[in-house]
Amino acid sequence: MIQNKIWRSMSVLTKATFNPRIVEAEYAVRGAIVLRSNEYAKQLAAGDKSLPFDKIIACNIGNPQSLGQKPIQFHREVLSLVNMPGLVDHPDVGNIFKADAIARAKHYLKRIPGGTGAYGHSKGVEVAREEVCAFLERRDGYSADPENIFLTDGASQAVQSVLLALIRDHHDGILVPIPQYPLYSATIAINGGALVGYYLDESSGWGMDVDELKRAIDGARAEGKNPRALVVINPGNPTGQCLSENNMRDIVQFCKDEKLVLMADEVYQENVYAEDKKFVSFKKVLMDMGAGYNDVELASFHSTSKGFTGECGRRGGYMELVNFNPDAMEQMYKLVSVNLCSNIEGQLMVALMTNPPVEGDESYELYAAQRDGILSSLKRRAVKLVAAFNELEGVTCNAAEGAMYTFPKITVPEKAVEEAKARGVAPDAFYAMSLLDATGIVVVPGSGFGQEDGTFHFRSTILPPEEAIDEVIEKTAKFHAEFMDLYR
Amino acid sequence: MIQNKIWRSMSVLTKATFNPRIVEAEYAVRGAIVLRSNEYAKQLAAGDKSLPFDKIIACNIGNPQSLGQKPIQFHREVLSLVNMPGLVDHPDVGNIFKADAIARAKHYLKRIPGGTGAYGHSKGVEVAREEVCAFLERRDGYSADPENIFLTDGASQAVQSVLLALIRDHHDGILVPIPQYPLYSATIAINGGALVGYYLDESSGWGMDVDELKRAIDGARAEGKNPRALVVINPGNPTGQCLSENNMRDIVQFCKDEKLVLMADEVYQENVYAEDKKFVSFKKVLMDMGAGYNDVELASFHSTSKGFTGECGRRGGYMELVNFNPDAMEQMYKLVSVNLCSNIEGQLMVALMTNPPVEGDESYELYAAQRDGILSSLKRRAVKLVAAFNELEGVTCNAAEGAMYTFPKITVPEKAVEEAKARGVAPDAFYAMSLLDATGIVVVPGSGFGQEDGTFHFRSTILPPEEAIDEVIEKTAKFHAEFMDLYR
Repeated sequence: MIQNKIWRSMSVLTKATFNPRIVEAEYAVRGAIVLRSNEYAKQLAAGDKSLPFDKIIACNIGNPQSLGQKPIQFHREVLSLVNMPGLVDHPDVGNIFKADAIARAKHYLKRIPGGTGAYGHSKGVEVAREEVCAFLERRDGYSADPENIFLTDGASQAVQSVLLALIRDHHDGILVPIPQYPLYSATIAINGGALVGYYLDESSGWGMDVDELKRAIDGARAEGKNPRALVVINPGNPTGQCLSENNMRDIVQFCKDEKLVLMADEVYQENVYAEDKKFVSFKKVLMDMGAGYNDVELASFHSTSKGFTGECGRRGGYMELVNFNPDAMEQMYKLVSVNLCSNIEGQLMVALMTNPPVEGDESYELYAAQRDGILSSLKRRAVKLVAAFNELEGVTCNAAEGAMYTFPKITVPEKAVEEAKARGVAPDAFYAMSLLDATGIVVVPGSGFGQEDGTFHFRSTILPPEEAIDEVIEKTAKFHAEFMDLYR
Repeated sequence: MIQNKIWRSMSVLTKATFNPRIVEAEYAVRGAIVLRSNEYAKQLAAGDKSLPFDKIIACNIGNPQSLGQKPIQFHREVLSLVNMPGLVDHPDVGNIFKADAIARAKHYLKRIPGGTGAYGHSKGVEVAREEVCAFLERRDGYSADPENIFLTDGASQAVQSVLLALIRDHHDGILVPIPQYPLYSATIAINGGALVGYYLDESSGWGMDVDELKRAIDGARAEGKNPRALVVINPGNPTGQCLSENNMRDIVQFCKDEKLVLMADEVYQENVYAEDKKFVSFKKVLMDMGAGYNDVELASFHSTSKGFTGECGRRGGYMELVNFNPDAMEQMYKLVSVNLCSNIEGQLMVALMTNPPVEGDESYELYAAQRDGILSSLKRRAVKLVAAFNELEGVTCNAAEGAMYTFPKITVPEKAVEEAKARGVAPDAFYAMSLLDATGIVVVPGSGFGQEDGTFHFRSTILPPEEAIDEVIEKTAKFHAEFMDLYR
């Protein structure tokens, strides 16, 4: 013990001497509850029968393939083909791979000097950036320039680069929704900037209101902060709402009036379930508003990890920078070039996601069936989970119009709040840990995303397979009733 | 023009308002000369015959497969197999893939829940960390703990994480060699820390001297800096020197005495060409020194991009943290978890690099032939280039004992120095740009790595294929003679 203490005091890096901005940062999606669930998983794997559950159900993270979602076959055939030298020309290749996949692999190999094992351009290989631009043009009806596309190791890296560019010191503020995806709060903390929270309105289905934005920005300025950017997550994470075009125009106008870079996190653009909603990109809305708005700087983020692609482990992502100053583009290029390039297969997955098989292609039928199967199943699961949460005592849950999460509001009884206080944890973290201890279900407490004071939530993904959703519902309901009774 | 000016002043992000630490950072490996070479490459591809050369020869970056180096077949077979669902069990798979590659792919698929498309543990999938540890134990004769291994998107990301942990403000200093790989200077600048340069001694083959370290650290402290870490690149980049064990022990002692984290960049550990030299890891040296040194914190970095693997585009890398305080490990875990995980195929490439086929395996013979072929060819090229540079007027070049570069010292005539000054560029940048303009050969000026005042260098990789090395030599010699005559 004494030995240990001496050793600790000798270290260069301790908690006390670590970069304090990292120490301060929080990232609940992989926090204490997840660490405990990892321990449980190890116990279960070792044959331990003492736990009140026989498996861990990970509802904490949008990681579809870890829960059994099948990858899009065409995309994987192409990745398989580009990796092994000579495979595209092997005499038996046609027995295993589809002809259009072979043709696509040849196309990429021709366009990528050195193949998947060579560093590419720091913004990403040209062929992938071109295919992204063709997709953007089909989606929005406006042209896109490959020079404005940056392919990154997941959208996270793109978000981090833009925040790093914006935050010079603790005066620089970023408007971020409450609740938000904690990548934003963590990165702002690590960069030493100011998080300027604006509230989404739970009572109107997590609506976004310009008056609330105005309140937040004025408050920040009154405190001497210099707000530089507005983060909008659409469809929302963890909240699932889809913005209307009217609302989006107001947001663009707000950014123009207030001189803010608009950071549009649009990684869930394929995940829209509400019948009366559809995804519209901020690029389209901005372009529709005309030349008078070509001074509004927009960074739009997309990823291979979400949608129906679900290729999280690939770390594929990109951002499009619209209306950025050429000087700023040059600095951004230099910044990403320090990392040389993002991983080439992630880049190819971006290309495949944005340039999938089309009608008439040999792989189209299977592609369309996989796509529609995944999206319709996600929709059923979203509806089912939301309905079930709304049945629980003291719980209300907005519809998941889009994205991959439900974010129910829970009533934590007074006694449980006191118990949590005594243990030094947030009441919803206490609830979520108790849920894990009782059921093996892993969710993230609302305090990890931010919420109105005095309200409590948790985030659960809609990703467990349909047959497991019933189990999640049943176990959660049983736990919830017992928890409420225990602390009533 | 006026329109343009108005627009510029309206931007949130301009050069004047961008994070100044990024604006200040320099990354010469992908700087102005590379940008111009990209323009030339486009001209050539478009059929332009007006240039005095018919191709670009990229000697600026250690990117072997872009210059024709073949990937290790076994590694690629495994990557191909893990990507396509069901391929390992396809009835025809044995016609195309080797049995040991199929077995290895099955092993990884069994150990990685969700396959290559799912997020893994934030430190990296367990199976890869275990294979890294087995490699470290074989290499060093000391055990390694998978909990101390962090798999990252290339070694660059690992280096950046450690520097981010160390640098709290502009007082925190990092000792970095001069010349150095500019990842270090750029990342220190971006994080707002202090670069404390120590000189390698060109006259003794880029030797590293503890007296010089002492001079540098004392000087930094006298200026109010707080040195926290020492970066050692071994084998050296751009300098190619291999440290002796005696020298390494002195360096460990220095870190102990001065309370510095030792950051050992060992990505070129397979690339040793000098007959009388061999690579020894800092982990082994530190462990050999005994329990009295278990307060010396060591971060050792390795990569799939170098050695004979050359898989740069894969972005595979790892670091081992030795003797780090548990609190610091926890913070580091949190920091990397904000990125969720590094790309899984990069992780698998790390596993394959550290756990290659062994004698008796079906793929061993080809593996060994590829490995030995690449390493012996690199050695021949290193020797040939160094000898050729030493033939040039006013040029001296130390032997490349290891790594992938030559770093000749050039004499830039007075008139050329003046001409460079008039153009606002460093004299060696002027030389390198002139070389590009005349020959299409891309090298990086020594000023991008740092060098003693008044000396000039350039870095050229040894990576062009053997048949192209003669062309590089011939063209460089002709250019050099003309340059010297022109400015004599």
